Amino acid sequence: MRIVGVDAGASSTRCLVVNENGHILGYGVGGPSNHKIIQLQNACEKIFRSAFPDVTYPSVESLCFGKAGILREQIVETIVKKYVNPKHLYICDDMKIALAGASLGQPGILVYAGTGANTYGIDEAGNEVRVGGWGYIIDDEGAGYSIGRQALKQVFRAEDGRGMPTILREKVLLYFGCATLHELLEKIYQDDGLPRAEIAALSKLVAEAAEEGDKVAQEILAWAGRTLAETAIVALQKLGKIDQTFTIYPAGGVFRAGHWILEPFTETLYKGAPLAKIKSPCFPPVVGAIFLALKMLNLRPNDEFLNNLKNELEKIKWLNN
Amino acid sequence: MRIVGVDAGASSTRCLVVNENGHILGYGVGGPSNHKIIQLQNACEKIFRSAFPDVTYPSVESLCFGKAGILREQIVETIVKKYVNPKHLYICDDMKIALAGASLGQPGILVYAGTGANTYGIDEAGNEVRVGGWGYIIDDEGAGYSIGRQALKQVFRAEDGRGMPTILREKVLLYFGCATLHELLEKIYQDDGLPRAEIAALSKLVAEAAEEGDKVAQEILAWAGRTLAETAIVALQKLGKIDQTFTIYPAGGVFRAGHWILEPFTETLYKGAPLAKIKSPCFPPVVGAIFLALKMLNLRPNDEFLNNLKNELEKIKWLNN
Repeated sequence: MRIVGVDAGASSTRCLVVNENGHILGYGVGGPSNHKIIQLQNACEKIFRSAFPDVTYPSVESLCFGKAGILREQIVETIVKKYVNPKHLYICDDMKIALAGASLGQPGILVYAGTGANTYGIDEAGNEVRVGGWGYIIDDEGAGYSIGRQALKQVFRAEDGRGMPTILREKVLLYFGCATLHELLEKIYQDDGLPRAEIAALSKLVAEAAEEGDKVAQEILAWAGRTLAETAIVALQKLGKIDQTFTIYPAGGVFRAGHWILEPFTETLYKGAPLAKIKSPCFPPVVGAIFLALKMLNLRPNDEFLNNLKNELEKIKWLNN
Repeated sequence: MRIVGVDAGASSTRCLVVNENGHILGYGVGGPSNHKIIQLQNACEKIFRSAFPDVTYPSVESLCFGKAGILREQIVETIVKKYVNPKHLYICDDMKIALAGASLGQPGILVYAGTGANTYGIDEAGNEVRVGGWGYIIDDEGAGYSIGRQALKQVFRAEDGRGMPTILREKVLLYFGCATLHELLEKIYQDDGLPRAEIAALSKLVAEAAEEGDKVAQEILAWAGRTLAETAIVALQKLGKIDQTFTIYPAGGVFRAGHWILEPFTETLYKGAPLAKIKSPCFPPVVGAIFLALKMLNLRPNDEFLNNLKNELEKIKWLNN
């Protein structure tokens, strides 16, 4: 039996194929597929060819596809079915697979902060809630892109005499190989602006600077932590769980900044929701897609399944990055 | 004698030619020229052909070119000299011509807020100061783009249950011809994001909504007004004019929102700098370029010059838009 999970995101598209015992049968990774149909087409061709190298038009028992961005389900379905023949197909939001992977399919709230940010929760009755995640133009507070922009903003505010001096200036100049802020401006705005992922990557420098004692960097991360916690509080309110025990999963690269972001996150969360629990995600989103594909077959992963999967996943590094 | 001013901006490039008495000899308007060399080339070809329809390679006494964006002076000089032969050529920042036009070449501070925002000042001794204006990725607070983004953000925060309801929701949906917020998202992010000028254009809806009593819209404009006033205060501090009489010129489309932005602007400014004076700009930036071109010849515009220019400019509508 072939169970397939796909995590289609803004930076890559990942596919995992397992059997009914949680043994990995294949996997593949492709480019981003959140935005343009041609991207999705290319990514699907690549991941399914990697995952099923010896089979033309493979039949699979159940496939769950977690899509990001604004592509419509009908388009995803058409393209997926060009490459595989799923008996059951479930297309859903990527936040849904991310939460399922984090919580082993249990109720909870996932606070995701990568290049973008998004908060999604589901309760025992299946009621769903979504807060934020409206994209970089509208509302990306707490996301890597917003942290990177804040870093740049504070460097230039210090230059203006509007903000405190910060070692982010030297770090950012060094990172981009620029000698002056004018060169940095040229770099940032060339070709109508640096890609958002490159600006989001500056959040690593902010974490470094915070670690080295830079107050400006520490405050940027504290702001991000508070903002992300606020989305969790709104999600708890909307699910009617604000004064109950309910689990929150912080996920995504932004939380790798460690305690500089987790402490203000935790503090703000507990102030608003004293009984909330914070847990690290159990599995990555693509495994959440596997769980949801199993659910289509009325199956749940048992301990043997989870152990097999866990052991074999450790050998596939990219799934965890 | 031909005196030429050019205002090269992010939305258009404008050229004006006058004689030594302020009579208009020609003018032209072209596309944006702030970013790419090819844009600058096209815009220059267009404006100089319009301004000098019957002359091949015209000689001019003095030309001042106010450039926006990151194009280097050397490039601007090379391209300008393909089309005209200036005895004196002065290439400067577009904020410098904007202030010269606003203040008739007198000391002062120009607070510009169009699609982007920028604050520039100069004192009697010629000391210059610049605050903000680092572009939309880094710091555009108070600019039309930031007001438009705030409008979108508040619409979606209300949808999340994180903010107050606002009539901006209906206004924005109607403006883009969308029935739902999902359609609006598709519109905003199609082709990797709406052009910034289109998002900045939403600031008109914010002004309308404020006028109709919408608290969310009023607070967005108040925030913009306060933020822009803060840049003026920092500029005054840096020029050592914080407790002296010194003139501030608010300019650009954002200030057309009227008292909703001007009142918080004024209040914040006077709190920080009680002796500052606020005045409307006298002339548009392209006329400031004319003043600076005259200065290259050690000339100053006299009353006759200014009256002639003013009367004739009124017939050229686009110069004032």
